[in-house]
Amino acid sequence: MQIGIIGATGYVGAELVRLLLQHPKVKRLHLSSVSFEGKSLFEIYPNFYERCDSVLKSAEEVVDASDIIFTALPHGVAEKYADECIRKNKKLIDLSADFRFDEDEITFTKWYKESWKFPQTHKESVYGLPEMNRKKIAKARIIGNPGCYVTAATLALLPAIENGLIKLDPIIVDAKSGVTGTGRSASMKNHFSECGEAFAPYAVGAHRHQPEIEHNLTKAAEAPCSVIFTPHLVPMNRGIICTSYAQLNEAIYTSADVDTNTRIFRRLYQDFYMEDKFVRILPAGMVPTTKNVRYSNYCDISVHVVQDGKMLEVCSALDNMLKGAAGQAVQNMNIMCGFKEDCGISMIPPAF
Amino acid sequence: MQIGIIGATGYVGAELVRLLLQHPKVKRLHLSSVSFEGKSLFEIYPNFYERCDSVLKSAEEVVDASDIIFTALPHGVAEKYADECIRKNKKLIDLSADFRFDEDEITFTKWYKESWKFPQTHKESVYGLPEMNRKKIAKARIIGNPGCYVTAATLALLPAIENGLIKLDPIIVDAKSGVTGTGRSASMKNHFSECGEAFAPYAVGAHRHQPEIEHNLTKAAEAPCSVIFTPHLVPMNRGIICTSYAQLNEAIYTSADVDTNTRIFRRLYQDFYMEDKFVRILPAGMVPTTKNVRYSNYCDISVHVVQDGKMLEVCSALDNMLKGAAGQAVQNMNIMCGFKEDCGISMIPPAF
Amino acid sequence: MQIGIIGATGYVGAELVRLLLQHPKVKRLHLSSVSFEGKSLFEIYPNFYERCDSVLKSAEEVVDASDIIFTALPHGVAEKYADECIRKNKKLIDLSADFRFDEDEITFTKWYKESWKFPQTHKESVYGLPEMNRKKIAKARIIGNPGCYVTAATLALLPAIENGLIKLDPIIVDAKSGVTGTGRSASMKNHFSECGEAFAPYAVGAHRHQPEIEHNLTKAAEAPCSVIFTPHLVPMNRGIICTSYAQLNEAIYTSADVDTNTRIFRRLYQDFYMEDKFVRILPAGMVPTTKNVRYSNYCDISVHVVQDGKMLEVCSALDNMLKGAAGQAVQNMNIMCGFKEDCGISMIPPAF
Amino acid sequence: MQIGIIGATGYVGAELVRLLLQHPKVKRLHLSSVSFEGKSLFEIYPNFYERCDSVLKSAEEVVDASDIIFTALPHGVAEKYADECIRKNKKLIDLSADFRFDEDEITFTKWYKESWKFPQTHKESVYGLPEMNRKKIAKARIIGNPGCYVTAATLALLPAIENGLIKLDPIIVDAKSGVTGTGRSASMKNHFSECGEAFAPYAVGAHRHQPEIEHNLTKAAEAPCSVIFTPHLVPMNRGIICTSYAQLNEAIYTSADVDTNTRIFRRLYQDFYMEDKFVRILPAGMVPTTKNVRYSNYCDISVHVVQDGKMLEVCSALDNMLKGAAGQAVQNMNIMCGFKEDCGISMIPPAF
Repeated sequence: MQIGIIGATGYVGAELVRLLLQHPKVKRLHLSSVSFEGKSLFEIYPNFYERCDSVLKSAEEVVDASDIIFTALPHGVAEKYADECIRKNKKLIDLSADFRFDEDEITFTKWYKESWKFPQTHKESVYGLPEMNRKKIAKARIIGNPGCYVTAATLALLPAIENGLIKLDPIIVDAKSGVTGTGRSASMKNHFSECGEAFAPYAVGAHRHQPEIEHNLTKAAEAPCSVIFTPHLVPMNRGIICTSYAQLNEAIYTSADVDTNTRIFRRLYQDFYMEDKFVRILPAGMVPTTKNVRYSNYCDISVHVVQDGKMLEVCSALDNMLKGAAGQAVQNMNIMCGFKEDCGISMIPPAF
Repeated sequence: MQIGIIGATGYVGAELVRLLLQHPKVKRLHLSSVSFEGKSLFEIYPNFYERCDSVLKSAEEVVDASDIIFTALPHGVAEKYADECIRKNKKLIDLSADFRFDEDEITFTKWYKESWKFPQTHKESVYGLPEMNRKKIAKARIIGNPGCYVTAATLALLPAIENGLIKLDPIIVDAKSGVTGTGRSASMKNHFSECGEAFAPYAVGAHRHQPEIEHNLTKAAEAPCSVIFTPHLVPMNRGIICTSYAQLNEAIYTSADVDTNTRIFRRLYQDFYMEDKFVRILPAGMVPTTKNVRYSNYCDISVHVVQDGKMLEVCSALDNMLKGAAGQAVQNMNIMCGFKEDCGISMIPPAF
Repeated sequence: MQIGIIGATGYVGAELVRLLLQHPKVKRLHLSSVSFEGKSLFEIYPNFYERCDSVLKSAEEVVDASDIIFTALPHGVAEKYADECIRKNKKLIDLSADFRFDEDEITFTKWYKESWKFPQTHKESVYGLPEMNRKKIAKARIIGNPGCYVTAATLALLPAIENGLIKLDPIIVDAKSGVTGTGRSASMKNHFSECGEAFAPYAVGAHRHQPEIEHNLTKAAEAPCSVIFTPHLVPMNRGIICTSYAQLNEAIYTSADVDTNTRIFRRLYQDFYMEDKFVRILPAGMVPTTKNVRYSNYCDISVHVVQDGKMLEVCSALDNMLKGAAGQAVQNMNIMCGFKEDCGISMIPPAF
Repeated sequence: MQIGIIGATGYVGAELVRLLLQHPKVKRLHLSSVSFEGKSLFEIYPNFYERCDSVLKSAEEVVDASDIIFTALPHGVAEKYADECIRKNKKLIDLSADFRFDEDEITFTKWYKESWKFPQTHKESVYGLPEMNRKKIAKARIIGNPGCYVTAATLALLPAIENGLIKLDPIIVDAKSGVTGTGRSASMKNHFSECGEAFAPYAVGAHRHQPEIEHNLTKAAEAPCSVIFTPHLVPMNRGIICTSYAQLNEAIYTSADVDTNTRIFRRLYQDFYMEDKFVRILPAGMVPTTKNVRYSNYCDISVHVVQDGKMLEVCSALDNMLKGAAGQAVQNMNIMCGFKEDCGISMIPPAF
């Protein structure tokens, strides 16, 4: 297998390189970077010293040389590569927002201020959340890899929605992310002395992952869901926690005591994700922490019935660079290629 | 003024020492510590080297030598000192949970598993949140200093409740605290390698600050409020953020567009806290961050109308050791003694 | 007193603003910033909200309105303001490297790649390390405020050199600094995900503070000193530790056992700094930590005789933004103005 | 292969579990813990949830069931298991200090305050630094796995000593470690609010890794080396940097200019470690950072000639839990078993 990465020197690109260099089915990597074309990757990322001597090429060379192409670029750029891949009978996994809204161009345009230039690519594209779309992914040629917050929130709420446990309005997702989520470009947002030893919300009521979560949940519910989404920045490198709140449907919460409800719902979540080895529903007494999913492709979830049985609270944790980005992209590649789903991404999270 | 601190070597106690050593109205400090009696304070806290040569005494000596006594002890211990202070005509400011529930012993006992031994002390006690109770504090002899999370949540929601803006059930408070909140005792909770580079919720649906928030809000609303409270631990030393969500009353959110509502509500908050110099209602475009209140007695608050005008979201930030504990205690002392309310606690937060 | 700060929106400038706003002798602050002229300071630094409504002016306006001017600018810019201050009979305290080499233009030019445009200003200037030059500072019009690393290293070695304890070649200074030392400009050096959870040396054998340390020590020794200086970046905001090593003169280390030597040398250090209230020589069993000097103007020092009495090792700690920059600058101002030396900068370091 | 770990719930033990669970040659793990016998490992380390259902057994059961045993215990405990392994024809890799001094019981006893109970085990033991002792390790039955600081310092200085570049007295090793080095037991040393946002030296002139470094270097030099060793604690989880200084022999530093010398010495280091794939000698312009070795078994080294050619300075970095402990232990296992040396430990360090 010849694999290409366009945008290999952003944080998501670099994480893809790391995973794919160690992936047993990958023969060769072809890397592209507009900013650093002609340089060796290890000059930008010295962690790869003696492990990757790839010289960064042009995007065109990468497309030509590869069977599967990952695009880790700002939104609005991947479409043309998707179009080219379709024409040349290659496969593409995009890690930007371009293919995350199925055919809903209106929502995309509202939030990303751009319209689609290659509309037919979106007809082909599949939203790459394996726990929702595994079968479609297997046959897809274009994958829109989900947002990091969105994966954590969707996996937390999907079983509740599909089982009709909760009211669809309002659903509150209070989310917290490590600083790698801001990307490689240095700015006041990720300046150590600005965000270290500090904690704050940002983009209150206006973050682009809100419509994507809503899109996913609405599709699952087959009815409109209304999501309030608040992201916060945590002074750590990796990890996302979503704490999600939704009111239980009366019919449900009146039927049993809180502990019984919790037990029933936890079991229901476990059943829902029976086939999904990257989702771990935690047993009673455990809550997710980013520490236990860091550097792995897991999403850990705990289920709680609170407020005397009126409210469902779900906590979910994942590594924003892995299950929230590059790990999930490789998971999609594995599914598309018929490999074992955890091939090359079965790392056990380190304890510290 | 002779000031005593019982429990001077816990984190809250040590912070009180620091503030009071630099307080212009304080003549002399008398310090007590069960764990370190007979030692000099700087042997336990070398930051005080050459600044405090106090030898740690017994609690009895401290009470006898002082006009005002701060108790920074585990719950259940302060009552007897309160009783003694009343008898000896001294004043006491308690930083534990003992006097935080007014006369509601039932709730206290439910959450703290102890009953009251000196019930009459609770008749005298005043809840020490100056923005709620300034006048009563001025005349009080016993003060129950509020919990750290509780101060942040109550200040965030008080104006909305007193102005009838929001529904009282459910009110969601998603809270995040730095690690000093776990106190000085070393444990797996505050082990650097367990909580550093990590983020997690804890005590989901079962934290003792939930009933205290509910108590405050219910009192303000004169109607039962139902609070869902989830604390999280942030890998930083100081600071709390509460992100609070409540549904707007229909009569209100239908009357104007989102931006207008936000502006009106922000103005309303500013008016509410007009006289409260430690509460800063942030202008449009700014959100609180712990960075901007660290090492100060401020509580910063931003007000947002979200979800197309249906939901009020309020973000509040404070330093858990200052406005959330020792700083607020000194603020109470200032009020009780007729000093300027910010005397000795007017520190400008450093930018980094 | 009318005080001006040119370069008020860099990190050192912002720290000066914080100190001077709270300084009891300062009437009014005049602030200048090339990058943000016309804006209010709190728009750039929201920690000052409700505490400073100064609008940023031009440098010219600041000079005209002020009696004492602080320049917190890149090197090479302060000279012209120094010249202007001399002509207009004002005083200037410069926090760049411009006035740190007395009249040694050759060394300055070698390391900073610029020559002096106003040579006469350097004749007037005094190196602003109060523990070396207090009397000269009192009469000076132009002060070159020392580098952060340099203050920590010089204070650590001065007593040993002036007492002839150590050999002058080699003197090794292994130094470690928090990230505020990189300044406010966002770059890969201070990107949280590049420097957080990481530790590394930088500028090995080539840092500009090496010649400044050598200049100080050579002056004190009245003989050439040869310094090896290695800085490292620590994933924290504030603080510097210098671990300095020098061989003891034979005549000294053979005369007594290690513990006796350590005790004698510690006493000698205590005597040396008897009048210097910002230098704390720690008692036996204590070593400096940045934690105990953070947010204060202290420099803590411990003295050790190691290697069976052959080597002197000195550990020194200070807050790079205070005793290493803005705090020391205010200390110089106090001396120049005849105020108490710790006026406005006597903060006790918080324990956490 | 049946593998045993005695002391599986300390930090080093848990890291061994993680590596060996993913090691392709390991059939089955047998785990023991005095503190948690009878519990499942994931109850203590939830990161292993769904990945390890081992129940913690007694040490005796583990020895009986295993071909190779790792002991990750306090010093003084492993000897008896070593003795048992020799008798039962099993192999043992000890991660404590017990087998780190070859047959020099005097030095061990001086620093660890215990004498040897099974002296014959030390006759058999080999010091497990593959870059020094690869051939002996291949045939050994008992391995003393090196200390974390010691590995970083020894690898940094070995080529210089074996090539006669440097003077042997004094050699200064200024070392810095992340907090996992303090182990799993919660204490004031590793309390987040005590060591976070702070930096300090500790055990100045008195750390137990000093004699171990001296032992290694003296053996390599075949002449007495005198090492000054100062450890510091860095507010991060993983990683060690050693900055080592030694004077160049006159014959060498007078022969060429600094840059030429640096280039020659770097080449010499590269040649020295030609066969050692876990040692990376960095090219000109690069210095080691813990960031680039974290979560890998690499030791990165940069070589510098400083002080006008008089001093050799070497910077070395490794992950204290991997090349400094568990990774190196697995490397030793691989050598002892004839596996590829990097089998199961060839992880590429993540960029962030």
